[in-house]
Amino acid sequence: MAKDFVTRSENYSEWYNELVMRADLAENSAVRGCMVIKPYGYAIWEKMHDALDKMFKDTGHVNAYFPLFIPKSFLCREAEHVEGFAKECAVVTHYRLKNDPDGSGVVVDPDARLEEELIVRPTSETIIWNTYKNWIKSYRDLPILCNQWANVVRWEMRTRMFLRTAEFLWQEGHTAHATKEEAIEEAARMLDVYADFAEKYMAMPVLKGIKSPNERFAGALDTYCIEAMMQDGKALQAGTSHFLGQNFAKAFDVKFLSNENKLEYVWATSWGVSTRLMGALIMTHSDDNGLVLPPKLAPTQVVIIPIYRNADQLPMISEKANEIKRNLEAKGISVKYDDRDSFKPGWKFNEYEFKGVPVRIAIGPRDIENGTVEVARRDTLQKEIYPIANIETQIENLLNDIQNNLYAKALNFREGNTRKADTWEEFNRILDEEGGFILAHWDGTPETEEAIKEKTKATIRCIPFDAPEEDGKCIFSGKPSKRRVVFARSY
Amino acid sequence: MAKDFVTRSENYSEWYNELVMRADLAENSAVRGCMVIKPYGYAIWEKMHDALDKMFKDTGHVNAYFPLFIPKSFLCREAEHVEGFAKECAVVTHYRLKNDPDGSGVVVDPDARLEEELIVRPTSETIIWNTYKNWIKSYRDLPILCNQWANVVRWEMRTRMFLRTAEFLWQEGHTAHATKEEAIEEAARMLDVYADFAEKYMAMPVLKGIKSPNERFAGALDTYCIEAMMQDGKALQAGTSHFLGQNFAKAFDVKFLSNENKLEYVWATSWGVSTRLMGALIMTHSDDNGLVLPPKLAPTQVVIIPIYRNADQLPMISEKANEIKRNLEAKGISVKYDDRDSFKPGWKFNEYEFKGVPVRIAIGPRDIENGTVEVARRDTLQKEIYPIANIETQIENLLNDIQNNLYAKALNFREGNTRKADTWEEFNRILDEEGGFILAHWDGTPETEEAIKEKTKATIRCIPFDAPEEDGKCIFSGKPSKRRVVFARSY
Repeated sequence: MAKDFVTRSENYSEWYNELVMRADLAENSAVRGCMVIKPYGYAIWEKMHDALDKMFKDTGHVNAYFPLFIPKSFLCREAEHVEGFAKECAVVTHYRLKNDPDGSGVVVDPDARLEEELIVRPTSETIIWNTYKNWIKSYRDLPILCNQWANVVRWEMRTRMFLRTAEFLWQEGHTAHATKEEAIEEAARMLDVYADFAEKYMAMPVLKGIKSPNERFAGALDTYCIEAMMQDGKALQAGTSHFLGQNFAKAFDVKFLSNENKLEYVWATSWGVSTRLMGALIMTHSDDNGLVLPPKLAPTQVVIIPIYRNADQLPMISEKANEIKRNLEAKGISVKYDDRDSFKPGWKFNEYEFKGVPVRIAIGPRDIENGTVEVARRDTLQKEIYPIANIETQIENLLNDIQNNLYAKALNFREGNTRKADTWEEFNRILDEEGGFILAHWDGTPETEEAIKEKTKATIRCIPFDAPEEDGKCIFSGKPSKRRVVFARSY
Repeated sequence: MAKDFVTRSENYSEWYNELVMRADLAENSAVRGCMVIKPYGYAIWEKMHDALDKMFKDTGHVNAYFPLFIPKSFLCREAEHVEGFAKECAVVTHYRLKNDPDGSGVVVDPDARLEEELIVRPTSETIIWNTYKNWIKSYRDLPILCNQWANVVRWEMRTRMFLRTAEFLWQEGHTAHATKEEAIEEAARMLDVYADFAEKYMAMPVLKGIKSPNERFAGALDTYCIEAMMQDGKALQAGTSHFLGQNFAKAFDVKFLSNENKLEYVWATSWGVSTRLMGALIMTHSDDNGLVLPPKLAPTQVVIIPIYRNADQLPMISEKANEIKRNLEAKGISVKYDDRDSFKPGWKFNEYEFKGVPVRIAIGPRDIENGTVEVARRDTLQKEIYPIANIETQIENLLNDIQNNLYAKALNFREGNTRKADTWEEFNRILDEEGGFILAHWDGTPETEEAIKEKTKATIRCIPFDAPEEDGKCIFSGKPSKRRVVFARSY
């Protein structure tokens, strides 16, 4: 275990905060609630970006860019939307500074007040639908399948790095369709893309389902979501895809001439994932020794460390190490050879272990004699001796094995921490003693959900798409219910 | 020529604005001075991003992300810096909206006033150097070679799409060094990267040089720049790289322990290019028939259009077209096969010509009989018959040829429009009658530069690195001068 590093069981929350900082992923900035994403953290986000961007393009989407600012009046056009975001808006009111007449510095110039205040986008439905109005005349202009990679701002009162920050990076897809069915299909398709990304790249199992009305996006008719379980048993909403109906088309008067020559309102979806996924990734796999990264998202997949007593042993080791590096790179594996003389091997072992590099190769003079190296895997911390001959294939297999193992471990954890509750007492006992996901009956009313949330802090994470029909009674009200939903405390 | 499309000689400025809109590159948004970058324009920007990002990484840089907001007091720490940006700052003063007590909508909540106003970053030196303070203790922490891809806001009064917008996308590199020499070397290296990118990807020749004090970045000791010539003879500053000395280190008290165990201030550079490059790209190559794109930045490099009378001819054509497409794609060439039945070939020819697709292949039943296709190149509008056999190699060569031809043509234009002036009368005559770059002697004083700018609207674009020493007299003051500098009217 890393020195002075708090364990998950001692204090999960502190473990997370320290890990984020000490693994050089991010740090708090001088601006309240805004973080600095450090190079190592940003390199992981870039890998996420690239994989998702390709998945979006492969499903027919294109990128575009819309303004950072939204006129206040636009935000107000859709009633539920403004209700949902009004309390956390950063507002630009002026466009100039000037020298303080007192000579004591620089002040906001009162003469440079904007006629209409601008909101720093918390999400872009309104500015985008105001734009789509000009792009859409007839059914031939549909569908529009746009995505935007951008920063957004929501003035959250309690912030935590990656999980909840005032500014965050994300992508937001905004699509326009001629029919309701096509829009619903799109919203479902993009939820599948998110689930695939979470499971195949992040090695993070997710539940797919639909949000209850209380948890729905402000302005949506339906919100689909993927929910993951963190190692403390709490749920984390990892991505959402919204069927917006015709709400924004009506708010911005976006109609199209159908192929039956009728003027109709356009159907919409929006969908997004954010740097919050970084928090999910960290909390799904990392351990008391630091970060654990799935190979598909690790900026460095393999680190090679030379072991030597005398400097004159280094050239021979380096020759072999660089040969291994080249062979691995030819397989598309990212490799770092750390031959810095200023740090000892033990220090380097700890450093890369803490930073979650999936595979470590150590090579010394005796290894070269034997034609072997020592290979350590980060997920299990196991070491093994590998022959150098054909090592690239073995390492490739090992990386796949680590990727699969991390997923299996996380799935196993989730399954072990998903329980049914049939009474209110059982529900409370599980929540307080074990946490995790609770499958329980709910009467389908917002009032019951609200009451449960107030009493227990647990919310309905989703109504799983694959929840079987089953007659039961609501754990809170005792009223009849047709299927179990997933309750949990959440991030 | 496209119907209703104004020519460059009729009205260059209108030609540019129309081209940007009609080629689907961008449009003005509902927010004053902010544009929407449409999918086709954004796809070109993505190509620029990817090429530059690779060049930055190949020169040892890493990406990171810093906050959108800068506390007002930070901006004020460096005196020249705040002086330079104060007049164009978007200022966030509140963090919440609320229902209007009159019931007439939503208003800014006066109780949610920020203690200290936040500036939407116009550039990030201040917030970054406040962060670097925590990252730098000793010479071992140096150099720091960070880059950020981000949006920035400068409240410009007169805006034009891509060239000058209130919000724009850019990258900003911010590096920290132990010595002055190393920082200067870095600033020069990054200018070279920009020049390479401009010439090799954008096919746009640039002059490399140093800015006169009047044109220097606010807070820099020296600003290096690349300057390009647009087709109307005006100059466009395409990228800048700043040697910041120790100004920001002093403003934010960033010191390091040198290897001689002394506490010293850190040396800095910053460098950036923006979506302004899109404007430069458009104005360098495009013509009265629309956009002209260099193949290396064209989202679609080759379009294949089927020519047929009866629908039953299409399958045979499509089979051959798709075979050609696959063969081209295997060479890394991006190809679109447009077999839409809803548009006629002539319409498609115009469309792709207007959008600047470098190569068009037309294929009909007789071509298939003859084993040939008709190939048209966008730069010269020439058509030629190519045998289908081994067409991928010929098209690859053609794309290279177009890339080189565009560069040569632009270089030729610049050389033909660069003139020496030795008297004030000559200087004025060339400016008014011919435009372009004027090589003239200048006495080296800001006063003279300012006076020339006031009388002629021409500024010193740069003092070229390769300007030969030459005794002369300042065209304005008659005082002695050691070398010619480049004057021009500019964007």
